[in-house]
Amino acid sequence: MEFNLSDYLSRRKELVDKKLLEYLLKSKNDLSKLHESMIYSVMAGGKRLRPLLCIASCEVLGDEIEKALPVACAIEMIHTYSLIHDDLPSMDDDLLRRGKPTNHSVYGEALAILAGDALLTDAFYFIVDEGISSGLKSSLLVEVIKDIANASGSRGMVGGQAIDLSLEGSKEVTIEMSERVHSLKTGALIEVSVMTGAKIGGANSKELYQLNSYSKALGLAFQIVDDVLDIEGGGEIGKNRGGDARNKKATYPSLIGLENAKRMAEQLTKDAVDALRTFGSEAAPLREIANYLGGRAY
Amino acid sequence: MEFNLSDYLSRRKELVDKKLLEYLLKSKNDLSKLHESMIYSVMAGGKRLRPLLCIASCEVLGDEIEKALPVACAIEMIHTYSLIHDDLPSMDDDLLRRGKPTNHSVYGEALAILAGDALLTDAFYFIVDEGISSGLKSSLLVEVIKDIANASGSRGMVGGQAIDLSLEGSKEVTIEMSERVHSLKTGALIEVSVMTGAKIGGANSKELYQLNSYSKALGLAFQIVDDVLDIEGGGEIGKNRGGDARNKKATYPSLIGLENAKRMAEQLTKDAVDALRTFGSEAAPLREIANYLGGRAY
Repeated sequence: MEFNLSDYLSRRKELVDKKLLEYLLKSKNDLSKLHESMIYSVMAGGKRLRPLLCIASCEVLGDEIEKALPVACAIEMIHTYSLIHDDLPSMDDDLLRRGKPTNHSVYGEALAILAGDALLTDAFYFIVDEGISSGLKSSLLVEVIKDIANASGSRGMVGGQAIDLSLEGSKEVTIEMSERVHSLKTGALIEVSVMTGAKIGGANSKELYQLNSYSKALGLAFQIVDDVLDIEGGGEIGKNRGGDARNKKATYPSLIGLENAKRMAEQLTKDAVDALRTFGSEAAPLREIANYLGGRAY
Repeated sequence: MEFNLSDYLSRRKELVDKKLLEYLLKSKNDLSKLHESMIYSVMAGGKRLRPLLCIASCEVLGDEIEKALPVACAIEMIHTYSLIHDDLPSMDDDLLRRGKPTNHSVYGEALAILAGDALLTDAFYFIVDEGISSGLKSSLLVEVIKDIANASGSRGMVGGQAIDLSLEGSKEVTIEMSERVHSLKTGALIEVSVMTGAKIGGANSKELYQLNSYSKALGLAFQIVDDVLDIEGGGEIGKNRGGDARNKKATYPSLIGLENAKRMAEQLTKDAVDALRTFGSEAAPLREIANYLGGRAY
């Protein structure tokens, strides 16, 4: 039977959405709009790329998807917090995200900052609480927590965002500097989504190596495609187009030209798919996710 | 030999300061001022109350203080992040903290938000990385991570801050609402400092219960003393005096009167010390920390 990506994605997405909403509603109290604001952004129609990669990576190894669900959801909470903080007036100052008003434009700056802080913190609570209920061992949980915190903190995503800010408006951004920013800011969380899924699935060292190659190629391809779509536009993004140029950000198209950027995305997508060649039909989700994401740009 | 609190505090503080600085310098890169900004706030002369409580609580049980150090430092990183975000223009809009310019007035709002985000995230990395090096078991680490994330997230510190914001300027704040805000916003992290130290020290259920009573009384006493000092002033605080009244915050003195607030702090301090009565001389640090903190108000 042929693999149907859109069917696969919508079934997995439903699991993630349900789990996330369940947790947020359970934690809610009536004394502030904090949880309302958290729910607003978490349920704002994200594609759930990172949790889907985490689940699909666990599936490649043949393990139950339920085991990957706690970590998958926690990564989405961290991703959502980063979007809320990125959109703040003192950061990118964006009013729209996925076609909807950004968190701070609905709930105000203070509550948006707190909603981000809470999602980030609660993600670690969630991993332990749900991870133990799902039968994950403590030794695996601490490894996964370390990986995720490393990928999201000062030497990962936040570090990349800080470098990006410091380079803004600078005319001396090289392609190496841009790659470093992207690999920290976007790549690190995508990679850790794949790698934690693989660890939960019990991957051996060869499998970890292959999935690491896949995730690195995919992470970079994803960023380049995003840069391309920021110029060419794409219905599903729902952001104000041309935001990067407006904020004078160094992007792949601005550094190597639009056509070269598209070719680079295409090659990286092939590299990602190629890294999966020794896996069987269980790798169909990861393979088709890469083809789908890369294919948006060319 | 009589217990010398000031000597004890300065020796323990030195351990914490050294460990924190070591970690932050190790993580630094030269492409942005992120780590400089993190170091600025972490090393801005805090009293290290929370890490000292964590260490002292572990010592009560007779365990090595080095074992508590990773968690103690991580809690201080979380405390520091919360101060950086609290001081932001959209929150309390404070320009001074401990007599020095606040993070955002030195590094700008965007980098201050990111420094806070990074300290919060890195705290979880640090617990696992340093905790494993110090020989803490995975099962203990996941329990401690869950406790700390619960105390700091949407059902703890951030939740309290959100409720506090929503009540600001409101005339209908009851003493119960104020207690709830304080217990979440300040109490939760103080309590978890004591309780994680106790768990690391191997406390049994009776000891956990006693230390929980101590930490609850201490946490509330601490908040009331802070409210009192915001009116009466105290050299070591170094904040702009009267900030609570300026921001129209409900405080204990504004709700029950200054003298009643002082008496309440005194009683809570006695309760805290009383909870330690079955412990021997090992409890001297916890006892004297409570007497010292409470004593500042009366």
